[in-house]
Amino acid sequence: MPHFGDVTGPALEQLSADTIRVLSAEGIQEANSGHPGLPMGSADIANVLYTRFLNVDPTDPTWINRDRFVLSAGHGSMLVYSLLHLGGFGLTLGDLKDFRQWDSKTPGHPELGHTAGVDTTTGPLGAGFSNAVGFAVAEEMLAARFNTADHKIVDHYTYVISGDGCMMEGVTSEAASLAGHLGLGKLIVFYDDNEISIEGSTDITFTENVNERFAAYNWHVLDVDGHDTEAIAAAVLEAKKITDKPSLIVCHTKIGKGSPNKEGKASAHGEPLGADELAATRKNLGWPADGGPFIVPQAVSKLWADRQGQWQTAKAQWQELYDAFKTANPEKAAEFERTVAGTLPENFRDALPEFEIGKGVASRASGGVVLNALADAVPELVGGSADLSPSTKTLLTKYESVTTGNFAGRNLHYGVREHAMGNISNGIAIHGGFIPYCATFMVFADYMRPTMRLAALMGARSLFYFTHDSIFVGEDGPTHQPIEHLASFRIIPNMTVMRPCDANEMSEALATALEKADGPTTFALTRQNLTTLDRQALGLAPASEASKGGYILKEASGGSPDLILLASGSEVSVALDAAEALESEGKKVRVVSMMSMEIFDAQDDAYRAKVLPADVRARVSIEASYEPKWLGYVGLDGLMLGMENYGASGPAEELADKYGFNGPAVVARVKAAGLA
Amino acid sequence: MPHFGDVTGPALEQLSADTIRVLSAEGIQEANSGHPGLPMGSADIANVLYTRFLNVDPTDPTWINRDRFVLSAGHGSMLVYSLLHLGGFGLTLGDLKDFRQWDSKTPGHPELGHTAGVDTTTGPLGAGFSNAVGFAVAEEMLAARFNTADHKIVDHYTYVISGDGCMMEGVTSEAASLAGHLGLGKLIVFYDDNEISIEGSTDITFTENVNERFAAYNWHVLDVDGHDTEAIAAAVLEAKKITDKPSLIVCHTKIGKGSPNKEGKASAHGEPLGADELAATRKNLGWPADGGPFIVPQAVSKLWADRQGQWQTAKAQWQELYDAFKTANPEKAAEFERTVAGTLPENFRDALPEFEIGKGVASRASGGVVLNALADAVPELVGGSADLSPSTKTLLTKYESVTTGNFAGRNLHYGVREHAMGNISNGIAIHGGFIPYCATFMVFADYMRPTMRLAALMGARSLFYFTHDSIFVGEDGPTHQPIEHLASFRIIPNMTVMRPCDANEMSEALATALEKADGPTTFALTRQNLTTLDRQALGLAPASEASKGGYILKEASGGSPDLILLASGSEVSVALDAAEALESEGKKVRVVSMMSMEIFDAQDDAYRAKVLPADVRARVSIEASYEPKWLGYVGLDGLMLGMENYGASGPAEELADKYGFNGPAVVARVKAAGLA
Repeated sequence: MPHFGDVTGPALEQLSADTIRVLSAEGIQEANSGHPGLPMGSADIANVLYTRFLNVDPTDPTWINRDRFVLSAGHGSMLVYSLLHLGGFGLTLGDLKDFRQWDSKTPGHPELGHTAGVDTTTGPLGAGFSNAVGFAVAEEMLAARFNTADHKIVDHYTYVISGDGCMMEGVTSEAASLAGHLGLGKLIVFYDDNEISIEGSTDITFTENVNERFAAYNWHVLDVDGHDTEAIAAAVLEAKKITDKPSLIVCHTKIGKGSPNKEGKASAHGEPLGADELAATRKNLGWPADGGPFIVPQAVSKLWADRQGQWQTAKAQWQELYDAFKTANPEKAAEFERTVAGTLPENFRDALPEFEIGKGVASRASGGVVLNALADAVPELVGGSADLSPSTKTLLTKYESVTTGNFAGRNLHYGVREHAMGNISNGIAIHGGFIPYCATFMVFADYMRPTMRLAALMGARSLFYFTHDSIFVGEDGPTHQPIEHLASFRIIPNMTVMRPCDANEMSEALATALEKADGPTTFALTRQNLTTLDRQALGLAPASEASKGGYILKEASGGSPDLILLASGSEVSVALDAAEALESEGKKVRVVSMMSMEIFDAQDDAYRAKVLPADVRARVSIEASYEPKWLGYVGLDGLMLGMENYGASGPAEELADKYGFNGPAVVARVKAAGLA
Repeated sequence: MPHFGDVTGPALEQLSADTIRVLSAEGIQEANSGHPGLPMGSADIANVLYTRFLNVDPTDPTWINRDRFVLSAGHGSMLVYSLLHLGGFGLTLGDLKDFRQWDSKTPGHPELGHTAGVDTTTGPLGAGFSNAVGFAVAEEMLAARFNTADHKIVDHYTYVISGDGCMMEGVTSEAASLAGHLGLGKLIVFYDDNEISIEGSTDITFTENVNERFAAYNWHVLDVDGHDTEAIAAAVLEAKKITDKPSLIVCHTKIGKGSPNKEGKASAHGEPLGADELAATRKNLGWPADGGPFIVPQAVSKLWADRQGQWQTAKAQWQELYDAFKTANPEKAAEFERTVAGTLPENFRDALPEFEIGKGVASRASGGVVLNALADAVPELVGGSADLSPSTKTLLTKYESVTTGNFAGRNLHYGVREHAMGNISNGIAIHGGFIPYCATFMVFADYMRPTMRLAALMGARSLFYFTHDSIFVGEDGPTHQPIEHLASFRIIPNMTVMRPCDANEMSEALATALEKADGPTTFALTRQNLTTLDRQALGLAPASEASKGGYILKEASGGSPDLILLASGSEVSVALDAAEALESEGKKVRVVSMMSMEIFDAQDDAYRAKVLPADVRARVSIEASYEPKWLGYVGLDGLMLGMENYGASGPAEELADKYGFNGPAVVARVKAAGLA
């Protein structure tokens, strides 16, 4: 049945694109849910990209040197699934039929790690575009590190399809500006310019000149008919020639192309065509009236089978190149393979610094020391800040910066672009070959929150590094003082949050974070000094215990507490002061340092019950934040000492006094609550 | 002492700008904290703006028709405080000396409502710029409503000073694109282009052509020497002539201008000049060696006293115009005064709709009905969506859209620009005259989180309206299914969050939100249908009880519960089902609908203890989210049923089954926990 004739050349390419259109519309109709407009509108672009340019290996979908493909307009997921079916990535027609169903390989939006051939999770608009900038940066950096004069083992493109929505999102602007600055010549973005958004024509809100805007960002801008295969192909060739600028290929398309009554209309965007319109579309595109759904014309199957053969040939050539590289550079190759596999160097923990006991050092400062020490032992550790490295202390001082045309460095400069920073950093993490960190003030985490969620959802080893973590920022005042931010991080599933109480916990924290290969970690670090605890002299547990997340830092006299004080970060010393005062009055007080709630919660019941015995209900948490999660430790009979409102501008010590975050104030509040 | 000679003309203007420089540097030096670079670099711009153009009334700093001034680069706050001192807004030299101290009128960043003459809270970069777009939109909308052919009672400009950081932020791009689209001719932005960021020259990350970028957004772009008073003034005059485009005046400046050794350097940005450099600066600018700090030359005092006289004259002219308007249009004037005062129409609640009992209606749909019903009664209610109104159901169907050149409508179209939407909406709210709502899918609240915080911090009556509030979004999958979002809203101080369980609670919710004049409200509304409860037949409490936040929806048999089920939104019906099943087995089960935790928590102890009696510890919360705040209600002995990880793509009913959110599943989980 699926024999539509022996077409060749342009007619075959058209038939292949139309196959993508029909399969996509059929999957969406079957699910009775989805977005046919984009897959149908950009089928010609995607078809020419996959059949003529994209260099991948369906039998090895995570091949490090594959070209990356990002559907930034992730709602058009059926486009990807149709391509992956045709390309032989293991999606069957049955999988396409299962679109958007429970446990299928074809979920509503593309999900990294869920479907072979999907390079990143998209859906939130602009995220894919900026992930792609991260891919392009990572490619340049990996190439700069490992390529030799004879062996360009890293040499791939990053292709993106973006829609109008992506172009409107601010994160795209940020990422595009940085990509233009860095001159990322191997980044090629197709802008599916269909002039339709959900509320109607883009004329109602989006009349800027996108071409000129991207030219202002230092992009190479091309403008083509997005249904003209040869024009698209010529544009890609021209884009590849320009090696010092990213390219934007503006493709004028019709949304829902092929649908006789919905083409060019907002109604094609976000709902199934409907059975009648789908039938009309099939007829319009020459599909046989008596053919069932989910069929692929034989000539199209042959076209893609041939393409798979080309991919195998290309991959074999690369493998040959790689083998030669490995023979000539065995150590370099081993390092390449190690970093691409995401395996840490053995004994990297030996590089962890020791800190002088008793000295006051802000955790942002000790963090910088640990980061720099580990940078020597872990070459794949790279990162940067959103124009705050002198304050976040995150510059890797022995290493160069990545600059336009020189990607051998390890310090990235993101500019004041937090949102793009997060997505670019995620892109670097999931590209492979690097463990990226990105830094800013904690209150500005709000700007990059969507990227923290995506990192956690994708299981990306991204390190989110936030300093100035409480009201103790001081004089900058409430706009710069985190209150709800710790809580906001700790509710993101698969995010580990660490707030070390001193320099030695900081060492343990960063090492532990690096060891978490399947998800991101967020650090909360102080602006103000913290005393490096003299654990031996004070009878405190060693900082290595912080690897359990929460631990008994100071045991109550006699070992059986009347009262447990729990704290994190800068408030641990407050808890110790309060405990000392209460113990001097004969109370038995345990102090728990809760470096990471997520890690503590993952310990076994016995350990958690040892730290927080069920029968000790006099429990007080101390953290200069608004964090309801402490309620899960202190319960209805305990007390949560935190911040219930915004802070104020003033010196940090004065704020500590006003808001009750010092030993005497805590003692008074504990007594007032009848807990001591 | 403060007599520096009888200068006039350009020399006096220079002296006035230098006074701003020195006062700013002195305040920062005194605080030993702050950012002198911007105030010194943009002193000439600010001086010419305030002394020649800005139309304000220091004796009536919230005058509705004042020109708005926004220092988007809020870290340069001493610039504002110096201007407000000179302008007679009530800041004394002592207040300037108190910069950044506890309880002073001069906090680290400008705070709305804290310091007279500050029009918005700034600090998070880009926020001020986009607030300003909101001001300009509000001005046009208010003018379109109330101005008559004879009386232009609303007719003001919005001026902004933005730095390089603001220009890099994506939110600025979004807001600028929309401002260009709408042709906001009375928005005039000075770009303090000093080419310095914290990490060094902007060359390291920011080499785009800002002028061309803004031209691409349909802005009128001018380029001047930012230290040439006449050039700046000429640019403002030219900007005012262009009435159909916003204007960007690119001002080339030297950061820290006037400091002999720090001018033009990153070191001038974010720390005090130091005593020696301050002394050198004073000398350089001709300040007397024997004069103390915080002095104002007599000629400068005279200049500003004259300016205050001009302001009084201008204000008197406006008052005359307004009085004539009021005489000619008494009803219109009354309505103008009411909306500007933020007072709701009397009896607006009479417009609340009644919903058909027993019918299934999504809260997004009932929300749309309530919104439309209230729109008739509350003309100041305006708003829009980030290109999702067909899905969020937030279009005011009887009213026009705001379009380029026509601001008489009430529906705003923000495009896919969530972050700008939030800040623009806040700008509309704090401009006065309107109560704005802004809508998108709940998962995209992450994009606009910084704006939710600012609304709460400023006490702005902004309504954040989020639909698709749980995994029951269904097929769109985990990128579109909120998990941690409800929790993320409920931790923002001064944010009220409402999640109604049916259409009648929805009515109560929106009315209650409108009545909260001193802060924002966030709505969490379903995509899926909710049954409008037949409260009488089922013996349930009336929906009006929802005004208490949480209430006993269904009392346990006999009135004394063994078990309390707490739920919000779509899970309330699950709780009712579970309660019915458990009651049929002889358990006594109370169901609490927690429409709003914040409102419930604000009730008195007696009420809260009545709803949640201290001795009933068998408590189970049911909400398809990850929300630690429930722990504060259920305690260590209770059970929190929620989502601990991301959802999945699939039909909503199937997800409910898989994740245990239906009556039988809840019963089983409650029993397994030994609570029934």
